[in-house]
Amino acid sequence: MRFLVLFSLLFSVLMFPAAEARIRRYRWEVKYEYKSPDCFQKMVITINGQSPGPTILAEEGDTVIVELTNSLLTENVAIHWHGIRQIGTPWFDGTEGVTQCPILPGDTFTYEYKVDRPGTYLYHAHYGMQREAGLYGSIRVSVARGKTEPFSYDHDRSIILTDWYHNTTYEQALGLSSNPLDWVGEPQSLLIQGKGRYNCSLVSSPYVCNATSPQCSPYVLTVVPGKTYRLRVSSLTSLSALSFQIEGHNMTVVEADGHFVEPFVIKNLFIYSGETYSVLVKADQDPSRNYWVTTSVVSRNNTVTPPGLAIFNYYPNHPNKSPPTVPPVGPLWNDVEPRLNQSRAIKAHHDYIVPPPHTSDRVIVFLNTQNKINGYVRWSVNNNSFNLPHTPYLIALKENITGAFDPTPPPNGYDFVNYDIYNVANNTNATSSNSIYRLQFNTTVDIILQNANTMKKNDSETHPWHLHGHNFWVLGYGKGKFDNFSDPIKYNLIDPIMKNTAPVHPYGWTALRFRSDNPGTWAFHCHIESHFYMGMGVVFEEGVERVGKLPSSIMGCGKAKGLGGRP
Amino acid sequence: MRFLVLFSLLFSVLMFPAAEARIRRYRWEVKYEYKSPDCFQKMVITINGQSPGPTILAEEGDTVIVELTNSLLTENVAIHWHGIRQIGTPWFDGTEGVTQCPILPGDTFTYEYKVDRPGTYLYHAHYGMQREAGLYGSIRVSVARGKTEPFSYDHDRSIILTDWYHNTTYEQALGLSSNPLDWVGEPQSLLIQGKGRYNCSLVSSPYVCNATSPQCSPYVLTVVPGKTYRLRVSSLTSLSALSFQIEGHNMTVVEADGHFVEPFVIKNLFIYSGETYSVLVKADQDPSRNYWVTTSVVSRNNTVTPPGLAIFNYYPNHPNKSPPTVPPVGPLWNDVEPRLNQSRAIKAHHDYIVPPPHTSDRVIVFLNTQNKINGYVRWSVNNNSFNLPHTPYLIALKENITGAFDPTPPPNGYDFVNYDIYNVANNTNATSSNSIYRLQFNTTVDIILQNANTMKKNDSETHPWHLHGHNFWVLGYGKGKFDNFSDPIKYNLIDPIMKNTAPVHPYGWTALRFRSDNPGTWAFHCHIESHFYMGMGVVFEEGVERVGKLPSSIMGCGKAKGLGGRP
Repeated sequence: MRFLVLFSLLFSVLMFPAAEARIRRYRWEVKYEYKSPDCFQKMVITINGQSPGPTILAEEGDTVIVELTNSLLTENVAIHWHGIRQIGTPWFDGTEGVTQCPILPGDTFTYEYKVDRPGTYLYHAHYGMQREAGLYGSIRVSVARGKTEPFSYDHDRSIILTDWYHNTTYEQALGLSSNPLDWVGEPQSLLIQGKGRYNCSLVSSPYVCNATSPQCSPYVLTVVPGKTYRLRVSSLTSLSALSFQIEGHNMTVVEADGHFVEPFVIKNLFIYSGETYSVLVKADQDPSRNYWVTTSVVSRNNTVTPPGLAIFNYYPNHPNKSPPTVPPVGPLWNDVEPRLNQSRAIKAHHDYIVPPPHTSDRVIVFLNTQNKINGYVRWSVNNNSFNLPHTPYLIALKENITGAFDPTPPPNGYDFVNYDIYNVANNTNATSSNSIYRLQFNTTVDIILQNANTMKKNDSETHPWHLHGHNFWVLGYGKGKFDNFSDPIKYNLIDPIMKNTAPVHPYGWTALRFRSDNPGTWAFHCHIESHFYMGMGVVFEEGVERVGKLPSSIMGCGKAKGLGGRP
Repeated sequence: MRFLVLFSLLFSVLMFPAAEARIRRYRWEVKYEYKSPDCFQKMVITINGQSPGPTILAEEGDTVIVELTNSLLTENVAIHWHGIRQIGTPWFDGTEGVTQCPILPGDTFTYEYKVDRPGTYLYHAHYGMQREAGLYGSIRVSVARGKTEPFSYDHDRSIILTDWYHNTTYEQALGLSSNPLDWVGEPQSLLIQGKGRYNCSLVSSPYVCNATSPQCSPYVLTVVPGKTYRLRVSSLTSLSALSFQIEGHNMTVVEADGHFVEPFVIKNLFIYSGETYSVLVKADQDPSRNYWVTTSVVSRNNTVTPPGLAIFNYYPNHPNKSPPTVPPVGPLWNDVEPRLNQSRAIKAHHDYIVPPPHTSDRVIVFLNTQNKINGYVRWSVNNNSFNLPHTPYLIALKENITGAFDPTPPPNGYDFVNYDIYNVANNTNATSSNSIYRLQFNTTVDIILQNANTMKKNDSETHPWHLHGHNFWVLGYGKGKFDNFSDPIKYNLIDPIMKNTAPVHPYGWTALRFRSDNPGTWAFHCHIESHFYMGMGVVFEEGVERVGKLPSSIMGCGKAKGLGGRP
């Protein structure tokens, strides 16, 4: 007995050698509520009554425990911890169909994972299109005590940018699954930390739109003159690429997706769905007035969605005092050059470079296209449009369940030689499949995202791709068709930034490298909610044989119904 | 081996001794579609693209197999076979939370049950408020070959009456769960066999309302002059009590809830949600014109919902030719007397009387009231407002799962002496509970439904109560407070009709008797969708120890997660 106590003691010391890692416990209830984030009242999925949900605050090395109770009436739910690698806990990645069965109404599901790296992360629903219904929030992991960051600031604030629709996600999903496609169109508004403003005078009678609702008063960022603010700006738009700016103030980019950036100064931050940035802003302007914080749509010819507005409030001015100026206009929607340049400017901080392997073991090229399958509009990679299976891959593979998905490997590339990325494809047909990429464990994998023309002439969209369970090195961005001979020579192997989300720009390519060192099954997909829903994603498997015993809580659907697991 | 074959042969002969019972197999896909049943477009839950869903046609003794695939995106589903007793298959009653876990998106669930009695039955969703979203249809079981019915007719038609809302069921449910109550109000239209008509000129711009859509052309009942029609009229309204009539034609009531009725002639049929009737109508009027079929709201002071209209079309007049008359006006909404009289007039056909036991072993009185719990409006019986548990009772009881529900028995009655049913209660508080009534197996149980005033002065509603798994004898309807000494003497023990649904009229009482002879757990509840959602129901358990091994397909939720069962 005494020996056991001693052993336990020794064990806990070994497990938590440095400062005491803590447990951060949250109890969340997910349910519907009426909310008016842009003055227009609609049903929103909330966490403990909030959308955005509560911010998770933790320190590097802590364990986060979220006990999530699903209080929706007939709908299931699942939450993904965006940017957290889930090392050793691939079953808590929260990706319905990939790592878990959905959480039934009435059930309480406990997510438990370690936040092993400091930085700015997100969480959001990863089931159907529930993210768009308001189920999202911030995760802020500070550096371990005793460690420092390569920059300093006085205050720390989180701002999530989203776009917002008045239609329900059910209507949107049904429209996307219809033939002909019944697309919802551009969003009604842009929200800054859950607050936006729709012009209520456009609203016809039976709707509730209240321009004086405090729920849609602009978000206020109060600053003390002379102080420096770390703004953790992230995007969870369902569709839109955004530009974010603070009138009259420069921003210094210092972090991207949890990695320190070699600082550079910008006037506006281009940000794509799934990305997080920290920028430093000094309150160094005339303190007798307030300034506009604005966000506006880029990369789409969107004449519908007005810019999102917030107030950069110099204390002690009244927070509701509008700035005396007209809100500054954002960049030109179709000017790709500055966006490409900003993507290229993001490099690892010189003291925090993680050198990438100089060669890779496997290269996979993903041609991004819009397609038709039996008349239905879809998105695909390599003309393969992805469908989620009803038995999660992780369970199927770990428990040797056959027939859960198509075992044929999906294509490793496309017809590089003949495919014209600048025109609508001659044959826009695609096939749909739930097959996955099985990676050899502990190897180096290169991903080339290749953009192309959509089914509309002279149109190529921006797709932000998000990888679960990993950070990848961003080796390069290019224009036109990726050339496997000449382009890899130009890769940045010196100080590439590591990220979990990176855009592929219109008619361009993006080269990523990662190590398949995290046993599990991991989604990699366009973070535009409707694009993933319409097939723009893949799943990687690596070292699934090394995954520990699955918890029973993730079971219960498809062929994993009735399956046990560890308690 | 030979012996085994012989045994199997013998076995199947023993199982199906009379005319060959057949298997009626259906494959259904449940999904969302845009539909315009009353010209106004909204998302409807369909079966194989239809709402009402396909009619199940079977013969007494047949086995019905429905393979139901849930193609909703994030929502589960469950379907109840209303009026089918599920003898030996209590797990296929389709009542989420009582007899099964819900069916997950992507899953195919197979319902399999015997239709052991001829008659007119229904099916509908029994999960959340999905019934109101359009998930319902008819079951028509004909008498076994060789058997006859005590009436004759030339043609047989099914007509389901429903009321229809333009708000989604999510919005309705959220409103009902809000404090203050955000009630959706009276329905926008009444549908006759899935077709109604909303005045599109009332619709403001962003809605789609197309008055010329064929989906909302009136339902046409084409008749050949001189022929007799059996109309199987049933109601699945979410709220409304209805009157149904055919201009200029008498109707002879011959069946109620699958039981032959001593025929009687009416001008209008009062029908409550969950009831089914067969009426005979002879096409014996001037055949040179068409006639109106109308249905209108009674029992509520509803000035909003226009009557539902259909065409009684005398062949060969054009089916779309409007009758030359103004549609006849229905009965006065607040005249309870004719409704009470019609309820009392329904008696068993003299050749088909099933005599009730002359005494009962247990009497339970259910006081029907509207209440408040912590400020939230609820409905209750005996001031106990019912909540469904997340582990279905059948599974919890059969598998000895403890802690799935409150084991305290709910109250057997109310304070008969002091409670004033004619006024708003002094104390409208109630408690909520998921406790159930455990009945001794094979005993005779009397249920007295006692109506009372709601929380509004001078207001008492009609509640149609539906019992799963049984038919009950309707022993009597009365006015005022049930008197346990004087009223039972007046019970009809001679020729009471058996039914599965019976109304309790405003400020009145209804006395029912049934035998607890069907092992299982059975819901008994007000069939008004919102009233059950708000707590107006109970569950009976009887002989659960006699229930066979549960199928694994009903498992998977709450404490029944990970539980096995027979394949």
